[in-house]
Amino acid sequence: MKDIQSQRDHRRINIQKVGVKDITYPVMVLDKAKKLQRTVANFNMFVNLPHRFKGTHMSRFIEILNQFHGEFDIKNLRLILEEMKSRLDAESAHLEIEFPYFVKQPMSRANAIGICEYQCKMHGVLDENYKLVLQISVPIALPSPEQNGEGLPRSPGHWGNAVISIQYRNFIWIEDVIQMVEEVIGQSRFIAAGRNNESLPPTDHLAAESILSVEKIAKALGRKFSGNTDIHHFSVTVENLSEGYKTFAILDGPQEQMAIEGTG
Amino acid sequence: MKDIQSQRDHRRINIQKVGVKDITYPVMVLDKAKKLQRTVANFNMFVNLPHRFKGTHMSRFIEILNQFHGEFDIKNLRLILEEMKSRLDAESAHLEIEFPYFVKQPMSRANAIGICEYQCKMHGVLDENYKLVLQISVPIALPSPEQNGEGLPRSPGHWGNAVISIQYRNFIWIEDVIQMVEEVIGQSRFIAAGRNNESLPPTDHLAAESILSVEKIAKALGRKFSGNTDIHHFSVTVENLSEGYKTFAILDGPQEQMAIEGTG
Amino acid sequence: MKDIQSQRDHRRINIQKVGVKDITYPVMVLDKAKKLQRTVANFNMFVNLPHRFKGTHMSRFIEILNQFHGEFDIKNLRLILEEMKSRLDAESAHLEIEFPYFVKQPMSRANAIGICEYQCKMHGVLDENYKLVLQISVPIALPSPEQNGEGLPRSPGHWGNAVISIQYRNFIWIEDVIQMVEEVIGQSRFIAAGRNNESLPPTDHLAAESILSVEKIAKALGRKFSGNTDIHHFSVTVENLSEGYKTFAILDGPQEQMAIEGTG
Amino acid sequence: MKDIQSQRDHRRINIQKVGVKDITYPVMVLDKAKKLQRTVANFNMFVNLPHRFKGTHMSRFIEILNQFHGEFDIKNLRLILEEMKSRLDAESAHLEIEFPYFVKQPMSRANAIGICEYQCKMHGVLDENYKLVLQISVPIALPSPEQNGEGLPRSPGHWGNAVISIQYRNFIWIEDVIQMVEEVIGQSRFIAAGRNNESLPPTDHLAAESILSVEKIAKALGRKFSGNTDIHHFSVTVENLSEGYKTFAILDGPQEQMAIEGTG
Repeated sequence: MKDIQSQRDHRRINIQKVGVKDITYPVMVLDKAKKLQRTVANFNMFVNLPHRFKGTHMSRFIEILNQFHGEFDIKNLRLILEEMKSRLDAESAHLEIEFPYFVKQPMSRANAIGICEYQCKMHGVLDENYKLVLQISVPIALPSPEQNGEGLPRSPGHWGNAVISIQYRNFIWIEDVIQMVEEVIGQSRFIAAGRNNESLPPTDHLAAESILSVEKIAKALGRKFSGNTDIHHFSVTVENLSEGYKTFAILDGPQEQMAIEGTG
Repeated sequence: MKDIQSQRDHRRINIQKVGVKDITYPVMVLDKAKKLQRTVANFNMFVNLPHRFKGTHMSRFIEILNQFHGEFDIKNLRLILEEMKSRLDAESAHLEIEFPYFVKQPMSRANAIGICEYQCKMHGVLDENYKLVLQISVPIALPSPEQNGEGLPRSPGHWGNAVISIQYRNFIWIEDVIQMVEEVIGQSRFIAAGRNNESLPPTDHLAAESILSVEKIAKALGRKFSGNTDIHHFSVTVENLSEGYKTFAILDGPQEQMAIEGTG
Repeated sequence: MKDIQSQRDHRRINIQKVGVKDITYPVMVLDKAKKLQRTVANFNMFVNLPHRFKGTHMSRFIEILNQFHGEFDIKNLRLILEEMKSRLDAESAHLEIEFPYFVKQPMSRANAIGICEYQCKMHGVLDENYKLVLQISVPIALPSPEQNGEGLPRSPGHWGNAVISIQYRNFIWIEDVIQMVEEVIGQSRFIAAGRNNESLPPTDHLAAESILSVEKIAKALGRKFSGNTDIHHFSVTVENLSEGYKTFAILDGPQEQMAIEGTG
Repeated sequence: MKDIQSQRDHRRINIQKVGVKDITYPVMVLDKAKKLQRTVANFNMFVNLPHRFKGTHMSRFIEILNQFHGEFDIKNLRLILEEMKSRLDAESAHLEIEFPYFVKQPMSRANAIGICEYQCKMHGVLDENYKLVLQISVPIALPSPEQNGEGLPRSPGHWGNAVISIQYRNFIWIEDVIQMVEEVIGQSRFIAAGRNNESLPPTDHLAAESILSVEKIAKALGRKFSGNTDIHHFSVTVENLSEGYKTFAILDGPQEQMAIEGTG
C-alpha cells in the first residue's frame, strides 16, 4: 500500500523542462531589403520531457547546435526543433532566439542614426504542431516639441516601447510588423498633438485626445493587429519610460490564448 | 450591422493589465531571528481592469504607495492590494516586491561571508481570493574538492541556483524555506561525493550517484516540498552556471497549476 | 647578464591591486533628516601591494568585513581602511561602496513618488593620507511641457542624469550636494524656457538660451561647485538619455586632478 | 579686478569630453581565419575640446557615423577619428567599440560549443599621435576534475576571466592574443594539478603549486606579454567568479603608463 502511494508521488513529480540557455551564437535572419542579415543572438534550447523519461544528456543540445558550424540560419529553425524532439525523445521542443535587428531609416529623418535597432525574439515550438511566435520591441518617440525659432533639428526623444508578440498563421516580414506598429504610433503622436487624422478608418485610430498614454497606444495597436488574417494570435505591451516612474499596459488579442510559455 | 461588428471588436480588445513598475522603495520584511529586517525592494503594482473600464489614473498607484511615508511594511501587503482594487475599481490587484534578504551564517563555515544574501520575490494577488507566492533563489555551492594537504580553507564555489516558488496555504518563514532547500542541496552534494545518507527516508534522498545534475536536484526538491501541508502549490527551477554553458530544469509541484501570472 | 635582466623584469611585473568585489551587504549611512539611513550596498575592497609582497590572503578581506556582524556603519569607513592596510601590509587600501540613498520629497511635487532614490558611491582611500570621494547621480527632469487645458498633473519626465564626484576637504551632507545640483538644474530648466533668473549672481547661471544641452548643464554645475571651499576637487558628468541617441559631457573641476582611481 | 578673476574662473571651467554613447551598430572585424567577421558593436564617440571651444553639435557625430551606411568596417577606425578631429575642431578624438568576437574551437574539446565568444573592446585615440588599445576578455575554465568511472565527458566549467589590454606597436591578430592568454592559462591549470611543465622557459611558467589564484595567473600573464616587442604597453585583470565571493588582481605592464582614459 505504502509502495503504491510512493510510486504515485514519484510519477507526479516530473521535470517540465530541461535545457541550455544564454548561449551567444551568430545568426542569419531573413531581411526584406537585403535577403539575409547577419547578427548575433542569444539562444535558449529546451524540451518538455515525457513522464517516463529518466535523465537527459545536456550535451545533445550542444551537439545539435554544433551542426551549424558557427552560423545559425533561421530558416533551419523548424529543422533544429525536429532534431531536438527526436534526439531527446521529447514531447515538445523549444528554441528561443533573441537578437538585435537593424533596419535602414529613410533619409528624411534629420539628425537620426541611419539605421535603427529593433530588439527581436523568436520562439519556435514543436509538439504535435509547429508554432512560431515573433516578438519585436519598437521604440516610441517623444511627441515632437513645438518648432522653436532657432531651427535646430532635434533627434526624436525616447518616450517608451511597444512590444508586440505575434503567433504566425502565415509568414510576415519583421519590417512589415515594425511598419504596422510605427503607423499606429505615428498616428497616436499626431493625434496627441491635437489634430485629427481623417485619412484613417474609424476603428484604426485614436479619438482626438491630447495626452499620450500606454492604454491608448495599446488599444490602438490592438485594433490594428486584430484585423490581420496572417496572424493567429497577438499580444501587446506598451511601456512609458519618460515619466518619473515607469508605466505599462498589456493587451491580449481577441483570439484564444497562446499556449506557449517561455523560460521567463 | 457594421456598428455591431465594430462594437464587438472593441469589446474584445481590452487592456489586461495596467500599472507602474521598477519603483525602488525601502521595505521592512518579517525576520525569524530579528523580527524585522530593513532592506530595499523593487516594486511592480498593477491591476486587471474590468471590461467596461475606460482609462485609468496611473497617479493613483503612486498616491497609494505614498501613504507608506518612505518605508513599506510587508505586513501591509494585503491592505495595499485591497486599496488598489477598490480605488482603481479593478477585478484584481497585483503587487510584486523583489528584494535581497540577508541571513546570518553559522560560524562553522570557514572563510565565508558572515551573512548570506538570498534574492526574494513576493507576489500578492487579490481578486475574489487572496493569494501570496514567495520565490527564493538559493545559491548551490560547488561540491567540495578533495582536501588537499596544504590545508588552505576554501570558500564554497558557486555551482548554480535553486529557485523555489511557493504559494502559501499557511505562513512559512523565509528562513525555513531556505533551510528546506539547503537540506536537500547539502544532501545532494553529500551523496554526489559517493557516500549514502542512511538517515533520510527513501523518498527524500537521491540515489547514490556521482554526478550532480539540474534534473536530480530539481526532483529531490520536488519530493521535499510535495509533502508539506503549509504549501498550496510550488514550482522549482534549478540552474547550473558552472559549466561552459548554462543548463536548467523546471519542475511543477503535483498540485493544480498556479493561476498567477506576473509581468514576466 | 641575462640573469640580471630577467630579475629586473621580474621586479617590474608587480600586482597593482588585489581584492574582493561585488559583495552585497547592508549599510547605515548618515542621514541629515533621520540621522541614520539603512540601505543595501555593493562593496569592493582592494589594496595596492608593495613590490616585495608575495601573495595575499583574500580571506583577510572577508574576516575584516565579518567584524561588522551584518551591518556596516559608514562612520567606520576609515577604521576598516586602516585595518585593511595593516592586516594586508599594503601601501594603500581602497573601499568602494555603492548604494541607493532615499530622500523624502517636498509635498508640492504633485504626482511624484514621495521619496526619491539617488544612486551614491563612496570611495575611501588610505595611503599616507586619507581621501574620500563621494559620487551622486541626480536625475534631471524633462523641461515641463506647456500647461494644457485638461489640467492633468504630470510627473516630471526623465531627461538624463548629472553625476557629481566630490573629494571632500570638509564633510558635506549627501542632501546638500543633491540640493546644489538641483538648484543648478532647476535654474537651467527655468532659463531654458526662455526666462532669465535675476536673483542669481552672474557667474552662477546660464545665459538665457532655449535649448537644454549636456555642455551647458555641465558648465553651470562646474561654476556652482568651483566656489565651494569644503570641496578639494570635483568632476561632473552630464548625460542626456531622452534623445534618439545618448549624449554626454564630462568636466573636471579647476583644482589639481584627483589621484584616485577605482576598479572601473 | 573682479572681472578678471571671474574670467579666469571661466577659462578654467572647461568641458573635457563631449560625445555620444551606447549606439548599437553592425561592424566588420579582421578575422585571421575568415578575413572578415561580421558582428554587432556598441559605439562611444567623443572628443576632447580645446579651451576656446564654445559648444558643439552632437549631430556631427551621427553624420560621421551615417557615412558607413549600416556597417562599420574596422579598417576605417583611423579614418573616422581623423574626420571627428577635423569636423569637430577637437584636440583629440576617441572611438570605443565593444563587440563579441567568435572563434571556432578545435574539435578535440569534447562536449564544448564549437565556437567560443570573446568579449572585445577597441579604443582608438587620435591627438598628435594615433594610439590603438585592444582589450580582450578570455574565460578561464575550472581545473578539470579527476576522471570519474562513469566516463561522462564534462564541459570545462567557468572559473573566471583574464582581461588583457594591449596598446599596439605593431598589429596583432585577436586570435593571437587569445592564444597567448590560453597558453598561460592552460599552463597554470596544468601546474595547478601538481605537475611541472618542463618544456617552457623558466620566466614563462608558474612555480609548481596546487592552488589557482588571481595573483598567480596575473603574474604569469605579465611575464608572457612583457617579452613581446609588438606591444607598446599592456595591463591585465584576472577575476575569479567561482568562489563564494569574487576576487580580482590587476597588473600593469613594465612600460610607461598608458595615457589613454575612456569613459569608464
